Amino acid sequence: MSPDSPPRDPRDPMSIAMDEARAAAARGEVPVGAVLVGPDGTVLAHAGNAVEAGDDASAHAEMLVMRAAARRLGGPRLAGCTLVVTLEPCPMCAAAAVHFRVGRIIFGAYDPKGGGVEHGPRLFARPDCLHRPEWIGGVRETESASLLRGFFAGLRGR
Amino acid sequence: MSPDSPPRDPRDPMSIAMDEARAAAARGEVPVGAVLVGPDGTVLAHAGNAVEAGDDASAHAEMLVMRAAARRLGGPRLAGCTLVVTLEPCPMCAAAAVHFRVGRIIFGAYDPKGGGVEHGPRLFARPDCLHRPEWIGGVRETESASLLRGFFAGLRGR
Repeated sequence: MSPDSPPRDPRDPMSIAMDEARAAAARGEVPVGAVLVGPDGTVLAHAGNAVEAGDDASAHAEMLVMRAAARRLGGPRLAGCTLVVTLEPCPMCAAAAVHFRVGRIIFGAYDPKGGGVEHGPRLFARPDCLHRPEWIGGVRETESASLLRGFFAGLRGR
Repeated sequence: MSPDSPPRDPRDPMSIAMDEARAAAARGEVPVGAVLVGPDGTVLAHAGNAVEAGDDASAHAEMLVMRAAARRLGGPRLAGCTLVVTLEPCPMCAAAAVHFRVGRIIFGAYDPKGGGVEHGPRLFARPDCLHRPEWIGGVRETESASLLRGFFAGLRGR
């Protein structure tokens, strides 16, 4: 898909992210999915967690879509873009969103233990934060949290 | 580094990291270099910043060596490994070191504006930090800071 063409996927970005989360769970990954939407609404990238598959502890869904979208746009910045993700970003992903200059973050479930936006170091609220994406959390929170709970319950039941 | 298994590269890891930082500057990247040393002292990976070359704002030297070393070891964790880097890691890289379970971080210059270990959110000092690498900062601090100062002075002089 070229950056200026409309998204061919008829689903809304959070639904695409949820499908990526489900696909990640099916691969044995923590079920988190993400989508990077361009300033004009084009879906630039979508991915699910790939930590185990890629032998890469940094391969969170958010990192994968930010990197893929920037590669596609041909520069290291994502100004005006929106990161849509099923779970509150961790400090690594939140800090990466600052480096990429992401404009907005929409996330699903809150993550009191591992989150870095509304929990933990709350990176965007810090006075030393060099760029502050807008963000909104709790979007389709129950659906996302239920996916995660199901996955971890399944692990414990093994 | 264990005394009975010297790295094949005759330079010590911080010297390799400094050379990577100088090579990054020559490519127009912010001059930061990093090395990932295995539990037995083997140099598993070394890299310099590649943000501009890779259209990837997350391509800090630390991220590149952690990912490369994990790929080489065949798993997403770097337990017992040491990350050697010429500059204090930013919050993204510090948080990634937690995810990779890096054992130890040795860094050069302190980064009061962008650092995440001894400055900013001080991630490893937080009670909610899930894994705490040991760290020591200020190693060959002057040499590393001088590289950075020279680079930014050059940019301003353009």
